[in-house]
Amino acid sequence: MSTQLAKARRGEITPAIQAAARSEQVEPETVRAELAAGRAVLPANPAHENLAPAVVGRRFRTKINANIGRSPERSNLAEELRKLDVALVAGADFVMDLSVGDDLVALRTAMLEHCAVALGTVPIYEAQARCGGTGANLDADVLLSVIEEQARQGVDFMTLHAGLLREHVPLALRRVMGIASRGGAILAEWMHAHKSQNPLYVRWDDILEICHGHDVTVSLGDGLRPGCLADASDEAQFAELATLGELVRRSRARNVQVMVEGPGHIPFDQIQMNMEKEQDVCDGAPFYVLGPVVTDVAPGYDHITSSIGATAAAFHGASLLCYVTPAEHLGLPTEQEVREGVVAYRIAAHAADVARGLAHARDWDDQMARARMAFDWQRQFQLAMDGPGARARYEQTRSDVEPDHCSMCGREFCAVRTSKRLAEELEE
Amino acid sequence: MSTQLAKARRGEITPAIQAAARSEQVEPETVRAELAAGRAVLPANPAHENLAPAVVGRRFRTKINANIGRSPERSNLAEELRKLDVALVAGADFVMDLSVGDDLVALRTAMLEHCAVALGTVPIYEAQARCGGTGANLDADVLLSVIEEQARQGVDFMTLHAGLLREHVPLALRRVMGIASRGGAILAEWMHAHKSQNPLYVRWDDILEICHGHDVTVSLGDGLRPGCLADASDEAQFAELATLGELVRRSRARNVQVMVEGPGHIPFDQIQMNMEKEQDVCDGAPFYVLGPVVTDVAPGYDHITSSIGATAAAFHGASLLCYVTPAEHLGLPTEQEVREGVVAYRIAAHAADVARGLAHARDWDDQMARARMAFDWQRQFQLAMDGPGARARYEQTRSDVEPDHCSMCGREFCAVRTSKRLAEELEE
Repeated sequence: MSTQLAKARRGEITPAIQAAARSEQVEPETVRAELAAGRAVLPANPAHENLAPAVVGRRFRTKINANIGRSPERSNLAEELRKLDVALVAGADFVMDLSVGDDLVALRTAMLEHCAVALGTVPIYEAQARCGGTGANLDADVLLSVIEEQARQGVDFMTLHAGLLREHVPLALRRVMGIASRGGAILAEWMHAHKSQNPLYVRWDDILEICHGHDVTVSLGDGLRPGCLADASDEAQFAELATLGELVRRSRARNVQVMVEGPGHIPFDQIQMNMEKEQDVCDGAPFYVLGPVVTDVAPGYDHITSSIGATAAAFHGASLLCYVTPAEHLGLPTEQEVREGVVAYRIAAHAADVARGLAHARDWDDQMARARMAFDWQRQFQLAMDGPGARARYEQTRSDVEPDHCSMCGREFCAVRTSKRLAEELEE
Repeated sequence: MSTQLAKARRGEITPAIQAAARSEQVEPETVRAELAAGRAVLPANPAHENLAPAVVGRRFRTKINANIGRSPERSNLAEELRKLDVALVAGADFVMDLSVGDDLVALRTAMLEHCAVALGTVPIYEAQARCGGTGANLDADVLLSVIEEQARQGVDFMTLHAGLLREHVPLALRRVMGIASRGGAILAEWMHAHKSQNPLYVRWDDILEICHGHDVTVSLGDGLRPGCLADASDEAQFAELATLGELVRRSRARNVQVMVEGPGHIPFDQIQMNMEKEQDVCDGAPFYVLGPVVTDVAPGYDHITSSIGATAAAFHGASLLCYVTPAEHLGLPTEQEVREGVVAYRIAAHAADVARGLAHARDWDDQMARARMAFDWQRQFQLAMDGPGARARYEQTRSDVEPDHCSMCGREFCAVRTSKRLAEELEE
């Protein structure tokens, strides 16, 4: 088995690289060079059939990830598969299954079959469910078995909180919100109970062996991501980040593709610093951020609080944005909330791509502007990020079918109509 | 008649200044000094009874404005008054009535009676409706009469597109979207038809006389604001801005309070430059921006595309944010869309206030973080920007009434529970 990273380093243009390059409208060599440098990853487990691979990195379109998955209390297979479909139709580039509870293997099998985009998991959830009880009951061998089984099953990327060290835990427990990551909390409890170092860190070489064997892309989890603005950019967060930088280098040395996960809850003014710091500490490894939300006070609207942060993050250094839905901090998202989350994040990703001058990114906006100027409503709905949604709102206040103005200003007060008339007169 | 600006310059602490200072939790002297320097405005027409005045400026909380008002084709008085109530309940600091059509006087009377926040208008809409036909039919005397009548009626601030000069029009007509402002388009058509300069500019001293007489705050309209990303930050936009700078100085010289309106559609990377430029060109006059939206491709979601831009704008220099609703580019907003617009903008304003380190701004976030850590759901709903909305989403996936975890992770996987348990153990 050889990974996309190993092949890229050998100068090989793989079919996955070709497919990703086509979808990015760049030369395959660009993708290969970025992969080889570790500045991009191409999650593509060979066991995941029918995968259309996508590349993550600063030279490429900003990607978005949708988290789905049931809690032990809620949701079932059919419901999660419907959410998967909703996320894919809405335009998610990646999907993570964060399910906990029983029958995770069957659920994942069904998801992999239905999912033409790369699928990620957090293996510690399944390991913890198998071991039962609290984090103290976690068994390191079980955890590695789960990683291996999931890799064999076809999971393309895995969140592994290997950078959360025992000595970081006291730093985090001083915070207002402590440890806000599920995986991080399990590991912290285990380390405390066993007075031992993080098993993911201790057995990192064994884990890399598994990931190498199945070309699983490592997504280094940030178990100490801040859970509120008060905890942002603190000692705990950056202590873990330093360890993640070390693990990036070890992963690359083993030819394992690696990206780094980031916060979380960050005030708007600290986003640029956080993005630059990760690129520096982790030697340009793709940064995969959750939001960040820029205020804690708007539960029910965290797709908005976080798409604000995500736009700034993608502008300043992130390459993959994990969506946040309106259900965040309140419960599991419904299908409609999954859709709203994906759309909000496509907006953030695209706005950032325009802002950082990605080639051709603004063409889409310019086409929309021309369609608006032409009063070509059908074309506007075709171009719209959510065409049916835009049409429904349009029809809600539309009083007639004349195509030469909109119902905001009415015909007589339509600035675009006046502007066009004036331009024609000036040309005469 | 003496304006708040004149009184502030004389060192007077007016009741309006006292009220604004109380609501900002600052010393009245701070408000007075900012007003006197022209870096803040306090729109408060003495004829607007029962007004609770609010101050706009960088030293104070970022404010948001909600536009309501009917088109000739849609909506009626009762409907607009309901939208007014929705906007006020949701937390709008200012409201503008952008109605066009007949019976505007009666509509405005009713709105002023119902509106405890400052109310703004765009007088050219009423003038154009009275004159009929296209912009060419506009009569300058009618326009000044309307300004005077509205001032007497109690309108607190007025958008006046006095900086759009005849020589700017050809620059704007070369654009992809031309002139996207209703008022700007009317004036451009008038100037073209009459081969004369903008009557608002020509008669600026007369207009200042009226505004001075009723302490109407001038909001200098940006008739050439870009209507799409392609037109952003262009020669037309900045030529008009230079004239706005001149008009700021003339207004201040006459003791008339003045703020400046800004775009519109701006790529995320150009927002900081735009904000700094206005503060520079207009000598620190409060900047009142519409969004800006940071991508053109998401009709139906422009409360999101623009709250992203608005956060960056308020962080970098704006003081008042004009909301954009999900109906933007499609039609007039429903009550629900008005509510969504206000909430999105309260998020933007607050996130920016936290980011720029406004005193006490983050206290709210910290209270929410502590309520989350305590699993105090009732307190979270009390603190939430939209408490009933948050509660409804919570109840949607809530499976039981235990208060010690949330339905996202379930009880066993709750990071906050684990984190608290661990902190307690470490303390022992």
